[in-house]
Amino acid sequence: MSIKDRISQSFNKQQFMVTLGAKLKDVNLGRVEIEFDYDEALTQQHKFIHAGAQAAVVDSSCGYAALTTMPHDADVLSVEFKVNMLRPAVGEKFLATGVVLKAGKRIVVTEGTLSDQTGEKIFMKMVATMIVS
Amino acid sequence: MSIKDRISQSFNKQQFMVTLGAKLKDVNLGRVEIEFDYDEALTQQHKFIHAGAQAAVVDSSCGYAALTTMPHDADVLSVEFKVNMLRPAVGEKFLATGVVLKAGKRIVVTEGTLSDQTGEKIFMKMVATMIVS
Amino acid sequence: MSIKDRISQSFNKQQFMVTLGAKLKDVNLGRVEIEFDYDEALTQQHKFIHAGAQAAVVDSSCGYAALTTMPHDADVLSVEFKVNMLRPAVGEKFLATGVVLKAGKRIVVTEGTLSDQTGEKIFMKMVATMIVS
Amino acid sequence: MSIKDRISQSFNKQQFMVTLGAKLKDVNLGRVEIEFDYDEALTQQHKFIHAGAQAAVVDSSCGYAALTTMPHDADVLSVEFKVNMLRPAVGEKFLATGVVLKAGKRIVVTEGTLSDQTGEKIFMKMVATMIVS
Repeated sequence: MSIKDRISQSFNKQQFMVTLGAKLKDVNLGRVEIEFDYDEALTQQHKFIHAGAQAAVVDSSCGYAALTTMPHDADVLSVEFKVNMLRPAVGEKFLATGVVLKAGKRIVVTEGTLSDQTGEKIFMKMVATMIVS
Repeated sequence: MSIKDRISQSFNKQQFMVTLGAKLKDVNLGRVEIEFDYDEALTQQHKFIHAGAQAAVVDSSCGYAALTTMPHDADVLSVEFKVNMLRPAVGEKFLATGVVLKAGKRIVVTEGTLSDQTGEKIFMKMVATMIVS
Repeated sequence: MSIKDRISQSFNKQQFMVTLGAKLKDVNLGRVEIEFDYDEALTQQHKFIHAGAQAAVVDSSCGYAALTTMPHDADVLSVEFKVNMLRPAVGEKFLATGVVLKAGKRIVVTEGTLSDQTGEKIFMKMVATMIVS
Repeated sequence: MSIKDRISQSFNKQQFMVTLGAKLKDVNLGRVEIEFDYDEALTQQHKFIHAGAQAAVVDSSCGYAALTTMPHDADVLSVEFKVNMLRPAVGEKFLATGVVLKAGKRIVVTEGTLSDQTGEKIFMKMVATMIVS
């Protein structure tokens, strides 16, 4: 099974990604992209995308980036993540990008962003720790 | 307007809380509780509540705990938060509790948990920084 | 060997604790206290204790709190920590307290504070992830 | 006064940097580098550089990177930082690099690393929030 198929298979089981309208966009070794559209159902009181909704998609992109570096029969679990909100998340389309910083045997450290489609305007920055579950 | 009314008014504008099925449970000066039920629509690939869904509700509880200490016409914005996932979030009902650690003039530091209904079994621990928006 | 002797043995090898003037104060299962005195050699530009010096001592208190829950031949390593600075660290004596939040088989999650001697005035709050090294 | 002079002036008041043997290496708008040598006085029980010593230097590099973007009469204070330890910090010379991610009016978000001299081998990754003090 290709890396992309492995990640897709797990991603498709994440019901919460369906709830958020998030779709797997791209999968490479150590890097995963997920996209979603603006939807009022995901907003906080100022109609910005809620930080928790942002974090959910970036967490999944980081987790799957980590999973691309793990053994074929592994599954991944988030141990912790921290997010900094750089600016209000407004726009039509959002791109979550997860990248592996360090793939250790026991622990994989990843960093992620939520940005606009082009990746230029960054709304959220995440650094997350993942383990084989 | 009472503290509870102020918080309810803002909470009711958070469409994402509706999406998550989250309800404001209790509001006191420096402490806010929000509850929600298990729903497969909120799960990751193992049918645990997705860390992002957990974080969203705990972030709102921390934000509103901070807001109870801010001026009456203020609104609140999350600057950053970090979460540690202590155990898989499984169960029927979940309780998010946000508490103010330090209410400064410019910055309010809060801590929060996601637990079972009783508050005894903790799934997620958050520490978050809030500002007046 | 008692828990206290195990922790002392490792603590005494931490040359950086000597540099900071930090001393092991108390060791219990899941809880370790370390103390140090104000010293200008530890300060930043406003003569407050540098956040890094604070973090170092709280990190050690959290690491050793975790170690009390690990197998007897284990050593401990910090995976990550986050600190929030609640107020400037000024005073004569400081107390770092590390407490275990969740002792898992692979990962131990801890929280810590830097406070005044009494533990009432908190300068720094830490949440840290530890593993057996 | 040039940016470099402003930063040097504040850096030279940080007694803790003297204690760590840290020296300001390079200052540019939004980016500051600090270097230090391996010293057993900075180690933990395995003779690696203590995470707290690492964090102190990276925190200062992030703080000063933030300060380069602030008004001329401003001083900087760390609100919070999180560090992930990617590998044991061993070597002869270390380089801390702080970079501004987002310079807001009230809050400056920075990221930093501790690496070897070349910047290629990364030991620690930090994301930190700074405010005008």
